[in-house]
Amino acid sequence: MNKRNICVVITARPSYSRIKTALLAIKEHPELNLQLVVAASALLERYGSVVKYIEEDGLEITRKIYTVLEGENLISMAKTTGIGISELASVFDDLKPDIVVTIADRYETISTAIAASYMNIPLAHIQGGEVTGNIDEKVRHAITKLADLHLVTTSMAKDRVIKMGENPENVFVTGCPSIDLAKEIYLDPELNFDPIFKYGGVGANIQVKPNNYLVVMQHPVTTSHERAQEEINATLEAVLELNYPTMLFWPNVDAGSDGTSKAIRVFREKNLSNKVHFFKNMSGTDFLRVLNNSLCLIGNSSVGIRECSYLGVPVVNLGNRQNRRDRGQNVIDVGYHSEEIIKAVEEQIAHGKYEKSSIYGNGNAAENIANVLATAVLSIEKVLMY
Amino acid sequence: MNKRNICVVITARPSYSRIKTALLAIKEHPELNLQLVVAASALLERYGSVVKYIEEDGLEITRKIYTVLEGENLISMAKTTGIGISELASVFDDLKPDIVVTIADRYETISTAIAASYMNIPLAHIQGGEVTGNIDEKVRHAITKLADLHLVTTSMAKDRVIKMGENPENVFVTGCPSIDLAKEIYLDPELNFDPIFKYGGVGANIQVKPNNYLVVMQHPVTTSHERAQEEINATLEAVLELNYPTMLFWPNVDAGSDGTSKAIRVFREKNLSNKVHFFKNMSGTDFLRVLNNSLCLIGNSSVGIRECSYLGVPVVNLGNRQNRRDRGQNVIDVGYHSEEIIKAVEEQIAHGKYEKSSIYGNGNAAENIANVLATAVLSIEKVLMY
Amino acid sequence: MNKRNICVVITARPSYSRIKTALLAIKEHPELNLQLVVAASALLERYGSVVKYIEEDGLEITRKIYTVLEGENLISMAKTTGIGISELASVFDDLKPDIVVTIADRYETISTAIAASYMNIPLAHIQGGEVTGNIDEKVRHAITKLADLHLVTTSMAKDRVIKMGENPENVFVTGCPSIDLAKEIYLDPELNFDPIFKYGGVGANIQVKPNNYLVVMQHPVTTSHERAQEEINATLEAVLELNYPTMLFWPNVDAGSDGTSKAIRVFREKNLSNKVHFFKNMSGTDFLRVLNNSLCLIGNSSVGIRECSYLGVPVVNLGNRQNRRDRGQNVIDVGYHSEEIIKAVEEQIAHGKYEKSSIYGNGNAAENIANVLATAVLSIEKVLMY
Amino acid sequence: MNKRNICVVITARPSYSRIKTALLAIKEHPELNLQLVVAASALLERYGSVVKYIEEDGLEITRKIYTVLEGENLISMAKTTGIGISELASVFDDLKPDIVVTIADRYETISTAIAASYMNIPLAHIQGGEVTGNIDEKVRHAITKLADLHLVTTSMAKDRVIKMGENPENVFVTGCPSIDLAKEIYLDPELNFDPIFKYGGVGANIQVKPNNYLVVMQHPVTTSHERAQEEINATLEAVLELNYPTMLFWPNVDAGSDGTSKAIRVFREKNLSNKVHFFKNMSGTDFLRVLNNSLCLIGNSSVGIRECSYLGVPVVNLGNRQNRRDRGQNVIDVGYHSEEIIKAVEEQIAHGKYEKSSIYGNGNAAENIANVLATAVLSIEKVLMY
Repeated sequence: MNKRNICVVITARPSYSRIKTALLAIKEHPELNLQLVVAASALLERYGSVVKYIEEDGLEITRKIYTVLEGENLISMAKTTGIGISELASVFDDLKPDIVVTIADRYETISTAIAASYMNIPLAHIQGGEVTGNIDEKVRHAITKLADLHLVTTSMAKDRVIKMGENPENVFVTGCPSIDLAKEIYLDPELNFDPIFKYGGVGANIQVKPNNYLVVMQHPVTTSHERAQEEINATLEAVLELNYPTMLFWPNVDAGSDGTSKAIRVFREKNLSNKVHFFKNMSGTDFLRVLNNSLCLIGNSSVGIRECSYLGVPVVNLGNRQNRRDRGQNVIDVGYHSEEIIKAVEEQIAHGKYEKSSIYGNGNAAENIANVLATAVLSIEKVLMY
Repeated sequence: MNKRNICVVITARPSYSRIKTALLAIKEHPELNLQLVVAASALLERYGSVVKYIEEDGLEITRKIYTVLEGENLISMAKTTGIGISELASVFDDLKPDIVVTIADRYETISTAIAASYMNIPLAHIQGGEVTGNIDEKVRHAITKLADLHLVTTSMAKDRVIKMGENPENVFVTGCPSIDLAKEIYLDPELNFDPIFKYGGVGANIQVKPNNYLVVMQHPVTTSHERAQEEINATLEAVLELNYPTMLFWPNVDAGSDGTSKAIRVFREKNLSNKVHFFKNMSGTDFLRVLNNSLCLIGNSSVGIRECSYLGVPVVNLGNRQNRRDRGQNVIDVGYHSEEIIKAVEEQIAHGKYEKSSIYGNGNAAENIANVLATAVLSIEKVLMY
Repeated sequence: MNKRNICVVITARPSYSRIKTALLAIKEHPELNLQLVVAASALLERYGSVVKYIEEDGLEITRKIYTVLEGENLISMAKTTGIGISELASVFDDLKPDIVVTIADRYETISTAIAASYMNIPLAHIQGGEVTGNIDEKVRHAITKLADLHLVTTSMAKDRVIKMGENPENVFVTGCPSIDLAKEIYLDPELNFDPIFKYGGVGANIQVKPNNYLVVMQHPVTTSHERAQEEINATLEAVLELNYPTMLFWPNVDAGSDGTSKAIRVFREKNLSNKVHFFKNMSGTDFLRVLNNSLCLIGNSSVGIRECSYLGVPVVNLGNRQNRRDRGQNVIDVGYHSEEIIKAVEEQIAHGKYEKSSIYGNGNAAENIANVLATAVLSIEKVLMY
Repeated sequence: MNKRNICVVITARPSYSRIKTALLAIKEHPELNLQLVVAASALLERYGSVVKYIEEDGLEITRKIYTVLEGENLISMAKTTGIGISELASVFDDLKPDIVVTIADRYETISTAIAASYMNIPLAHIQGGEVTGNIDEKVRHAITKLADLHLVTTSMAKDRVIKMGENPENVFVTGCPSIDLAKEIYLDPELNFDPIFKYGGVGANIQVKPNNYLVVMQHPVTTSHERAQEEINATLEAVLELNYPTMLFWPNVDAGSDGTSKAIRVFREKNLSNKVHFFKNMSGTDFLRVLNNSLCLIGNSSVGIRECSYLGVPVVNLGNRQNRRDRGQNVIDVGYHSEEIIKAVEEQIAHGKYEKSSIYGNGNAAENIANVLATAVLSIEKVLMY
């Protein structure tokens, strides 16, 4: 029997963390052959290349493709997307996958969707049907309309994909593979390493212990990149005022990351705080373990909505980046204002850990995804259902 | 008062014909400034460059961009799309439009949609919400999810766009601008020129008179491009058998056009018929006039569904290219089989002209489109409505 | 022992014909492994794709890459070159050749040279050191300055390459592989097939017999592409007047090919002559056989200078395209004027066949080239010798 | 009278510094119109964008184009070059320059040369005919073969360009415009600003006074980028040992800059020295002033060979990057070994300032360049002179 070739395209560090368990499940599945393409910022040192994590996880990279046009502005984002299509078309032509898998909604993931659908290769989209706001919103739903198979994380997401006119037969609730990792941490929750010793980074040499520190991870919001500096500064002020040991993570590549990164760099170089340590990146598991033992996560990352709901980590979610995402009890939403942030963090610290929520799945998403990819009826013909 | 800069991107001859009246209305509108970008096959001689028609129509081309990677296969289509994004990003960066307009659903139009939306420029999509099948289907609805304003041709289309989760406030039924042209012909229907004298072309020197000839316009269907030759051959056989004077038009550029074009070339070079004349292209108005005075149109072009419904021209529509498009009484659908085609054409000739239908508008779409572009509230933020 | 991977990039039909014997010799060489990349117009049907010839010759294509941006003007030539570099960089990264081979001086061959030299792969250049004029001149010598090994056809070429500052140790006179093919024809000269029967084509159904026909092959000259139509028309007038059976070959892709092609198409469609047959392409061997049995070759192709010198075929060479190329006795040079052409052709017919010249080698270039590639000391470091 | 449009393409910070006076002279020349295109790393913050310096110098940027594909390896260098050609072709098509000017020999400057020459625009090359080694060597001479006008800095360079087969009528010794800036400093030599106060940077807060400090500027060498870390470490060790206040400048973008930059970053983060301050960039004039008042320059930058020869600054030149460049008395050449470096620096400090050399001109290059561009006979046709 011929195995199905499943080509998964990873374009950024957080996408890899989120999909890792599914990649391993695809690799192990007797009827599937994994083709792993690493592209865009996932290859670049300064955004925290995932190459070494992938290799440490026992996965083999089939192709590396460079697609990021430097500039970190809107024009370079658009051109990066164009380059991505062109490069991926060559890769798909060589690898002849039976299914191409694209993940979530970063701007460059539409390159994968277009290259696959234009080359008549069935396209599976993971994490469609969610609602957030900003450019991701447009990208995510556009990919839904290009995709042939929809592997969604929640039943609400399934409903939305079907409402958009997709055939219910092609929509599968698998849960979110990020929860598979969270489940591992849930079952073995201890903070069993010293983050600064293991990952280096720069800034204050803080002493990280369970329940004595905050975590900050804030990404620039694409359609308002001039405000990026201002927005991160609100957070940094709150962190200074709160005065807990704090682990701060640099943002991903995006238009505006320059703004956010620059403000962080300025903050760091002023040496204003002796309680903040700055990390470039961390393996997905270690990061979850860090979150699980923290007092609170501050930021606008989706990890606060997804993994933290399962782990019950208190989250102060900033601004509208995760606006409409389905969420559990563990989240307090605030604006980019230092006082609001301070107040919410204090409230969360007072509350402590929340109950486990299974809104994003029960930790078996990887297996579900591999099974759908192995058994789904493949077709590239589709038509609006109304 | 500052005029709004409206940047319309034309990527193919038929798109130009269809949008022409709207371009003129934008140009004349006191609050709008037209920026006309001509790209892709619309620039290329061998697909019937529209440059000279645009100039004859009194419009000025703001930018010409070359984006078609030769190959006429799936990989070159994908790469052409990537190149288009990259080139259009530069153009939009220079022209600083207030609105970018993309038309319909050809594969390369998604380049316009991505470049505009990624650069935070409000995107207006003309002719969304229709249903057809094949790759166009995916492209059209993906563009809907990237677009901020939807200018649709029918009330059914409006309903579908809203169902897909778009804000009803941003969906406008303007009618189809192609009907504006059809209206001119409706009001002045005479065949007032000799097509061979005016447009040259090759093949038999047929005598074209009102109601003595057939018109053939058949495009390859992207996702089955190997069958392209077979499919056009069914039509050519039918044409031979029917033995009417016949005006045959070459297809657009597309993966597979080589198959279709080659079969036509072979047919022509065999000199099998002394009743078929081959045209490369024709101005939109002249083409409608030719259709309006024909016995029947054979093919799979959307002109048979739209303009011909208004003009009441009998149409034999082939295959599933126009599958789910809203249609009037004037269409008989058949497969790519010569006997079916012959039978349907004979039926249509026996029936003669149909009543005018206004399913695609009443001939004032151009004005409606210009007004929406001048007055719509502009925003690039949107979110799924459910 | 590890074989050296020799990656040869073919970008056009005539380059393939010229290099064919060397490719076979590389393939057969015990210490070499041939990696054959087919790119640019060599893949495109409308310029006479070489794919089927390559396969018929028993060679395997390692990679096909599409690089031609349609437009046939200067801007699309430049962009095609840029695309070529980008695509070839990926290919070289995959194939990891020990030597990359680029041939002659067409505009797109500099893509091969840049991609290889920028990726630190030793670059061998075949046919450097010649002198012609026009853009080819710039391209050829620029490639010489990027190349590490120079495999030249004549001792005069070797002198020029060394004068340009290259290390004499890296310059090898191999002869021209095109002469290897010519030698085969020289040894077996009969016209043993009917060209129209074998290759089709269009136009008059002429009767081709040894020494009863003319051959025309005229390429547009890049830096004067507006004059292309005028220049081919001079030839067509001469052909009409001379009134011999004539085999006319379409030109290669180039900026301006549209002008030349269009003029030929107009000429053909006017049906002015009942003695001209039009061919798209022909295998290299068959073409040489056709030349060898012709009365005279008219045009500006290098085949008239090279292969015809060895075969002694009379040539009327037009314009300055072959301006400074080293040449034998068999060539009469004229301008693009019909009277001049007529006079020279009549003179050549009166003279008949010339003596064999070995200015471009003795027919063992293929073997010489393979040997150099197998044994040359490889280095990417070089420095001007003065 | 129509002014000639002179389009100068700047692709990196050092190129701008070197050409600045010529740009101002072109701008002021009554018969010239300056079109300034800023591209590649010259636009990027992390390599020290030149945008603000250009604006401060009173020049206007006509176009900005993003061309750097991230990756900092050989494949991304090649692709960056391809992208550059494609983008510049569009720019030249828009700007319609009479002459395009490309500077020196960085890998991406060949994009300018190819785009211009392929679009039939006369190409002027500044700083051809020099000899160095590594990939620059290939690039520089390849550009010479594409260029129509050669504006060289020394009479030796002129001789080499002519030897390569260029027409002596098109080769002009203008001197090096970098010397024009050096002349300004020569006439007004005082260190009239505090570098740390003015430019920030990171590291030790050293006290910079005339003749109390060293300057380090070391670029990775492209064809040995794995050794980049090792090579910079030799320098850093020497600097530690020498124990003078030291101003260290980050390298340019290049394959391997990651290696060099990383080693510097590691060195800095270890806080090994309290005498080294790290600068990202500086205006050309300020940098020369800093050099002019330093004890010695250590590194492999061409500034040590050119400007420092005029200013008489002692230089310890590392490795073979400037290998064959014509040089004055002020340079001691050593390998990348800390002991050699230490010994040479001590020798230079003992010697102190050298006499002014005019090998690279007398400080009127800008004027000479503008005059050549205004008066040279323009042609794109050229042919090897032998």
